[in-house]
Amino acid sequence: MNGAEALIRTAIASGVDVCFANPGTTEMHLVAALDAAPGMRAVLALFEGVVTGAADGYARMTGKPALTITHLGPGFANGIANLHNARRANTPVVNLIGDQATWHLAADAPLTSDIDSLASPVSIWVRKAKTPAECAPLLAEGIALSRRAPGGVATLIVPADCAWGETPGPAKPVAVEPAPAVRGEQIDAAAQALRSGEPALILLGANALSVQGSRAAARVAARSGARVMYGTFPARVDRGAGLPAFQKFPYFPEQGVDLLAKVKHLVLAGALEPVAFFGYPNLPSRLAPPGCRISVLATPEDDAAGTLEALASALGAGPNEGEVAPRAELAPASGKLTPELLGRTLARLQPEGAIVVDEAATSGAPWFAFAAGAPPHASLGLTGGAIGQGLPNAVGAAIACPDRRVISLQADGSGMYTLQSLWTAARESLDVKVIVCANRMYRILKVELARADIKEPGPAARQLTDLAPPPLDWVALARGMGVPGERVETAEDLAAALGRAFADRGPYLVEAGL
Amino acid sequence: MNGAEALIRTAIASGVDVCFANPGTTEMHLVAALDAAPGMRAVLALFEGVVTGAADGYARMTGKPALTITHLGPGFANGIANLHNARRANTPVVNLIGDQATWHLAADAPLTSDIDSLASPVSIWVRKAKTPAECAPLLAEGIALSRRAPGGVATLIVPADCAWGETPGPAKPVAVEPAPAVRGEQIDAAAQALRSGEPALILLGANALSVQGSRAAARVAARSGARVMYGTFPARVDRGAGLPAFQKFPYFPEQGVDLLAKVKHLVLAGALEPVAFFGYPNLPSRLAPPGCRISVLATPEDDAAGTLEALASALGAGPNEGEVAPRAELAPASGKLTPELLGRTLARLQPEGAIVVDEAATSGAPWFAFAAGAPPHASLGLTGGAIGQGLPNAVGAAIACPDRRVISLQADGSGMYTLQSLWTAARESLDVKVIVCANRMYRILKVELARADIKEPGPAARQLTDLAPPPLDWVALARGMGVPGERVETAEDLAAALGRAFADRGPYLVEAGL
Repeated sequence: MNGAEALIRTAIASGVDVCFANPGTTEMHLVAALDAAPGMRAVLALFEGVVTGAADGYARMTGKPALTITHLGPGFANGIANLHNARRANTPVVNLIGDQATWHLAADAPLTSDIDSLASPVSIWVRKAKTPAECAPLLAEGIALSRRAPGGVATLIVPADCAWGETPGPAKPVAVEPAPAVRGEQIDAAAQALRSGEPALILLGANALSVQGSRAAARVAARSGARVMYGTFPARVDRGAGLPAFQKFPYFPEQGVDLLAKVKHLVLAGALEPVAFFGYPNLPSRLAPPGCRISVLATPEDDAAGTLEALASALGAGPNEGEVAPRAELAPASGKLTPELLGRTLARLQPEGAIVVDEAATSGAPWFAFAAGAPPHASLGLTGGAIGQGLPNAVGAAIACPDRRVISLQADGSGMYTLQSLWTAARESLDVKVIVCANRMYRILKVELARADIKEPGPAARQLTDLAPPPLDWVALARGMGVPGERVETAEDLAAALGRAFADRGPYLVEAGL
Repeated sequence: MNGAEALIRTAIASGVDVCFANPGTTEMHLVAALDAAPGMRAVLALFEGVVTGAADGYARMTGKPALTITHLGPGFANGIANLHNARRANTPVVNLIGDQATWHLAADAPLTSDIDSLASPVSIWVRKAKTPAECAPLLAEGIALSRRAPGGVATLIVPADCAWGETPGPAKPVAVEPAPAVRGEQIDAAAQALRSGEPALILLGANALSVQGSRAAARVAARSGARVMYGTFPARVDRGAGLPAFQKFPYFPEQGVDLLAKVKHLVLAGALEPVAFFGYPNLPSRLAPPGCRISVLATPEDDAAGTLEALASALGAGPNEGEVAPRAELAPASGKLTPELLGRTLARLQPEGAIVVDEAATSGAPWFAFAAGAPPHASLGLTGGAIGQGLPNAVGAAIACPDRRVISLQADGSGMYTLQSLWTAARESLDVKVIVCANRMYRILKVELARADIKEPGPAARQLTDLAPPPLDWVALARGMGVPGERVETAEDLAAALGRAFADRGPYLVEAGL
């Protein structure tokens, strides 16, 4: 058995059975191994940013990694941006990167580059096989590490001769190291802070964002009066009627500073301390003022959900305490679409169990607010700020959950980064409904220009922040990749279009003119 | 004057007056500076792979760098693949990458990453400003280094506070270090080898690919009987009737080994020693056999064209010696399109002075052969094997040479990597005619599967190498980005479509069904 087949069999034995790929010559033995070792679903994407973003979305929904297969340094580099998002989401992803044969590296052939230098910034673990026999054991180790809480990106570089060379066979799965046990002293410290009666905020991250974690946080809130929020960029939250509905910590640092100015106790449950997304003159990096005491109930590496449950019990909260969102019956909206009308319409019509991938940037906030009372659903968000996450995440989520409807709520600017996702959605007949929020500008940059005191942008500034002319015709772009669609400009038409979209399974795109 | 304006004014003073950009928040002061400091053309691309590929194409045609502006690590990472190509093309490119404010890095905000680690593999020089005052002098140094022969990628990381902070003003241009003087001993050694009468091959690279270098090589060939070839992946060659017409060194290593087996003297004029593009079992890395003597007439860092001229004179070649290609009048072709009929039709109809960007992969070779007798034209090729170069290169070449027609001869698989280029072509009304060679597969991978002894690809192998279903509709994709076009399937229809395309200025796309 060659190294490639040993790799694929090891992955399957470790429970990894989906692979997103854009292979090249050095990966041909890996490709052949996918046929030799049945049990791995291989999904082609026409660009590596789709490959890695799909693996991220898949793992956010399944909790387990997919493989990615990419072609040497430049092919892998195309996937870095979405691996950056996966890294910030603490998503388990396992990359296999083909490389030149070990003996051919010294020739410095045209495609040769320093893959380790490219992979390290987005990986918790980068290894390179030196022999065929090393491949499978290294992969088993990488898979286990990627799954260790809170999850991470593991990267294995596979030289071509290691893929085609003979091996003793696959490696046994490596046990995943469990999260550290819940620590009593942290729970005591948080309980003491929350019992003080002083204003307190509990911030959720990592596995505290789960239904288990959210319910526990709601119990804690009910007993303590503390406020609960998600971190600004939650990887995944499960929300909707019958579930706790929290808000996200604000994006702009002024708002974060204002909010924390009134907080005496900040309890971090799997979340990191709030920092500004960008530095601005006269604003701090760390948003909590000196008077705000921070207690780390659980780090992202801990079992934050279990710790929150222990905290709820310590505070005497009953198992059914805690506020949940009521089912909100929204009235149909009408008129020219705005982000508010769009969000209201989607929240009204989204089906039970939907997975909403929200990369709508400035157009997405109203939906998140309205959706608190929608049927229960999962919401995946941009985590690392590297735009182009949404469409690939939706592809991965749809592969992960073929029985759930996936809705990609997508800004036009970021959608263009990885629009090749639509082709994979069509090829795999994925039930992904894309709503493109087409405001035809990088609206966040218009806001940031104003924040930078550039009151009247000149021609260059307009040139670099407007997405028209020419206007993007998303319906044509989708059709070009095999996805049907339509453009709407009013709330009524959006509702009708969503009705058509949800009537069938399969991909559909609605360009929502804003 | 803030750091951003000092940077832009320094670039303009150094002769750099075009900037390809996809900025974000940390680049807003750079964007404002483009308005404050007139003289820099700013071109927006909707993806960074277009930004860097356009800068590469621009510099291949002008010989001078453009600026790129990208947004932190992930934004820059999207441009790495085409910078890899630029690096292998020895193209001068100067990257400005915005970063978090220096004092904000420690907060490890979501978009923060190790930019230096990402940029180093594709850059000859990476620096990061630590103060506003450092920005401009560093940029002047980077521009000069990027222009030093043979040209390279220089990267300056600009923290946001260095862009917005006060400076003493722009920096003076730094003189570009000239290429080393022509070295007599190398010329003597090459002359001796060529006078031996034994079979000799001269391989052209770097500036030996120029008209000056090619003419000198043809003079050398006329006197010595040596064969002349371009390296396998020439960045740019100027060819056509009245100019020397050489072939490219073959791609597959078996062919290279066969060719060199008959060569006693290999003379490298700006080219590197031929190596296999990929390693294969039982094939060598270095293709020249031990019996083939290699003499380095000029390294890529030398003035290879000037050295070839000196060699021609040393051999006694007159200024007008050397074979040039005659004008070939090709007969119109007819019938279902094949790569051969496509190449013949384009070579017959391409206008004088065209710039043909050839990323047609397996479909492009016939055109290159037929075009030897076409009107004089420039041909830009894939240099580093990182697919997705063609369309962005065409955008950059069209910005560089507004009076020349640009033809993008493009494979469909690689075209999908950076199809956002079409939008920039439409926005800037660039005279780019795209011919998509739509064979609906990664044909090179089918070949490589066979070479890897995978005679009957299984379902996974087919799944990962076929681009249909669904078929890409390139006419719809182009229309979606504001570019008109049509699909053709016969040579007659291609000729008619090219007639329509060349009748007007502006972008046009022809999907050629193969």
